[in-house]
Amino acid sequence: MAKTLTKRKENYSQWYNDLVVKADLAETSAVRGAMVIKPYGFSIWEKIQATLDKMFKDTGHLNAYFPLFIPKSFFSKEASHVDGFAKECAVVTHYRLKNDEKTNKIVVDPEAKLEEELIVRPTSETIIWNTYKNWIQSYRDLPILVNQWANVVRWEMRTRLFLRTSEFLWQEGHTAHATKLEAIEETEKMINVYADFAENWMGIPVIRGYKSENERFAGALETYAIEALMQDGKALQAGTSHFLGQNFAKAFDVKFTDKEGKLNYVWATSWGVSTRLMGALVMAHSDDKGLVLPPKLAPIQVVIIPIYKGEDQLNQITEKVNLIKKKLEDKGITVKYDNRDTHKPGWKFAEYELKGIPVRIAIGPRDIENNTLEIARRDTLEKEIKSQDGIENYIENLLEDIQKNIFKKALKFREENTFKVDTYDEFKDIIENKGGFVLAHWDGTPETEQKIKEETKATIRVIPMDAKEEDGKCIYSGKPSKKRVIFAKAY
Amino acid sequence: MAKTLTKRKENYSQWYNDLVVKADLAETSAVRGAMVIKPYGFSIWEKIQATLDKMFKDTGHLNAYFPLFIPKSFFSKEASHVDGFAKECAVVTHYRLKNDEKTNKIVVDPEAKLEEELIVRPTSETIIWNTYKNWIQSYRDLPILVNQWANVVRWEMRTRLFLRTSEFLWQEGHTAHATKLEAIEETEKMINVYADFAENWMGIPVIRGYKSENERFAGALETYAIEALMQDGKALQAGTSHFLGQNFAKAFDVKFTDKEGKLNYVWATSWGVSTRLMGALVMAHSDDKGLVLPPKLAPIQVVIIPIYKGEDQLNQITEKVNLIKKKLEDKGITVKYDNRDTHKPGWKFAEYELKGIPVRIAIGPRDIENNTLEIARRDTLEKEIKSQDGIENYIENLLEDIQKNIFKKALKFREENTFKVDTYDEFKDIIENKGGFVLAHWDGTPETEQKIKEETKATIRVIPMDAKEEDGKCIYSGKPSKKRVIFAKAY
Repeated sequence: MAKTLTKRKENYSQWYNDLVVKADLAETSAVRGAMVIKPYGFSIWEKIQATLDKMFKDTGHLNAYFPLFIPKSFFSKEASHVDGFAKECAVVTHYRLKNDEKTNKIVVDPEAKLEEELIVRPTSETIIWNTYKNWIQSYRDLPILVNQWANVVRWEMRTRLFLRTSEFLWQEGHTAHATKLEAIEETEKMINVYADFAENWMGIPVIRGYKSENERFAGALETYAIEALMQDGKALQAGTSHFLGQNFAKAFDVKFTDKEGKLNYVWATSWGVSTRLMGALVMAHSDDKGLVLPPKLAPIQVVIIPIYKGEDQLNQITEKVNLIKKKLEDKGITVKYDNRDTHKPGWKFAEYELKGIPVRIAIGPRDIENNTLEIARRDTLEKEIKSQDGIENYIENLLEDIQKNIFKKALKFREENTFKVDTYDEFKDIIENKGGFVLAHWDGTPETEQKIKEETKATIRVIPMDAKEEDGKCIYSGKPSKKRVIFAKAY
Repeated sequence: MAKTLTKRKENYSQWYNDLVVKADLAETSAVRGAMVIKPYGFSIWEKIQATLDKMFKDTGHLNAYFPLFIPKSFFSKEASHVDGFAKECAVVTHYRLKNDEKTNKIVVDPEAKLEEELIVRPTSETIIWNTYKNWIQSYRDLPILVNQWANVVRWEMRTRLFLRTSEFLWQEGHTAHATKLEAIEETEKMINVYADFAENWMGIPVIRGYKSENERFAGALETYAIEALMQDGKALQAGTSHFLGQNFAKAFDVKFTDKEGKLNYVWATSWGVSTRLMGALVMAHSDDKGLVLPPKLAPIQVVIIPIYKGEDQLNQITEKVNLIKKKLEDKGITVKYDNRDTHKPGWKFAEYELKGIPVRIAIGPRDIENNTLEIARRDTLEKEIKSQDGIENYIENLLEDIQKNIFKKALKFREENTFKVDTYDEFKDIIENKGGFVLAHWDGTPETEQKIKEETKATIRVIPMDAKEEDGKCIYSGKPSKKRVIFAKAY
């Protein structure tokens, strides 16, 4: 069964979908907009989870678990929050099914109607701040540094595997602080954790910045985001960290007694990344042959394939492979030896290229004679013949090199596709014909951003944290501006 | 703030609830029957999860993720399954909220009614077998050995923290096999994994056995369970593994071509344990002073508390503690040094007894002089003075000893509370006045079990897998019986 992909140039969107399905990452389900994450896809997600979880714990956070359901009334307590999420909520109204005697079909029991409807969490600020109210009395109870790994539901109308699904998996950090400064520091710390993870584990360069008012999280005073550029020139928001001020503390009446004995509202942050990162991982690096996985997140880092005729040759090869495998595993490298006789080497080569395994080793009778191996790297598709002696050190270095190279390649792509623009005509031309990040001056108003969005579909992705002060004029209104922001079309 | 618990003898049920809340394991939430798992409780659950996850992977299973929602029609496809779960389902009927202009309140938008209602999964057999249909064509696609860590919802009317909650966390394994024999082997393998985990990690002795027809999983041909005895003489079902036959394959039309080219229905198993294990852990070992945690699942295994006056003494102690801590950590032991000056040593002693930390080390100025430490073990509450030399080896052995001792104690308790009974009068007396496991003959009919349940509240917990053949008469009907089964009142 050939598993050919649509080429990126022909139809990028179809290529993405083909790849996600054919590489066994995920597939659509019987439930509108919800996906099944298949074992191979989930094993990558487990690597992402484990790495991030360690980073969160290393920065002092603990995990906890809060209810899936949120009473409807909780939503109304923070005005902008309900505006942001009300339109895409799954609502539980009943708690029982029954057999309808007339039709002999299973129906919702009308007598089992809930007094207050429950919302399946689209995010957990409200239920968590209602809980924190009981946890916080004094400054001694602060800070609270808690994270939750959970599923959430947002009833999106247009869905795409990983990128936008009605249910997704994520983590949401929710912290409580005694001072504004401490909360802002936490917000920044976590966006930096996300950027570190994106760049050094996923191999995806990101821009850190603030969201404009239009793009801010519903209920936040400031949203920090990391933005990545995909191969089709569209931006992807890969993680956000929100400074929530005292909005949720006020909505749920969460106060603490400070050292001077005064009552104050608590300061809050929240931050999250989701299975969307899987989409970013696929789109940032992969090619027309399949996935390209950074070694640090690849569930299998090295695959070894025997090239043989007959059982004698296979036995000879297997003996050698077991030694090599052991040496690699002793270095902490994950190795799979695929000696199945149900598939030909060529089929296996294609399969592991599709699955993005960083390094492939092929070994045949001539290699046994010559004490050699054929090493192929997935990122560049280069092959070379190497001696078996010290191969474990060579592979170890090669994996590091691939990790770096993937990042470098993505960075180069981003640099080549980031444009400084000073006129609206030029802006429209690039957005429409080239794509990429466009650095332009903006007058700082939501109205201007909205008009540009309507006319070009581009939005402000971030106001970069490291943007240099520079006098300029808004490309749309001509009004004065102090720094450039990043525009792009986005996922 | 004193955190005294109700005594077990006074009110076991209140003691349990006090302990779960005061030891910071969990608390009730704003959503009926759903709990908040607090950071300390969740850190124990993470240990349980990590251990089981490794055991599942070591037995060849991979994780995946399936949708939270299940279309209502899926439930109707397996008749006994829908009977088992229909009465306790949370039902999603709408996908949007809106602002009601008349009342200015947030209401469910009547125009956003789903065509088909969605059930929040109480278990995932139906959605998973609907998915497996597309994964399985030939014997080459089998077996499928997949597990999922997830939240599930069962709308229980009477709830208790961890033991019975409307939402809980669990894992559910769902496997597909070419033959009946292989599926039965899998079912047994997994009940053995659970028993191994319960006994060697949780320190809880369990009886492996088959469920009677009345207590079987809705849709299973055979349910295997492990049953544990709690300190109040009630049984707790700690894990189940189901042989599902071809029921779900038939309901979802999942067939495969075997080696001879013939079409057959696929054989299935499912198996799960949940956050209920947390309740078992608390109830099996803890005492009137608080939790008693087995070292293998304790998030903190050793706590060190300095006894000092003034900063000079503290500095001297801290210097010594840092060395000891390092030595313990090098052995993989988790250590917390609590040098907070906001709490007195006595308060800390009580706090860590409440939290169940297996070993407490106290160190004061005289210990510095004498090169000693005071070691207290949580399980027996014994204290002793030991030399600081080689303390890391001593503690390492002590932790192993505590792990074993906890199990031994629980086993002794079970042995002392397991009764062979041959008359119904004796049976009723023990069930009503003593509690415990009662080994009695039963005629094998659901009717008899039902009557005994109605009259005594005791049910058949399991038909032990290792039960010896023995001629006897049913305690209720007097009809002939070939082996004894275990009766008890249960959680």
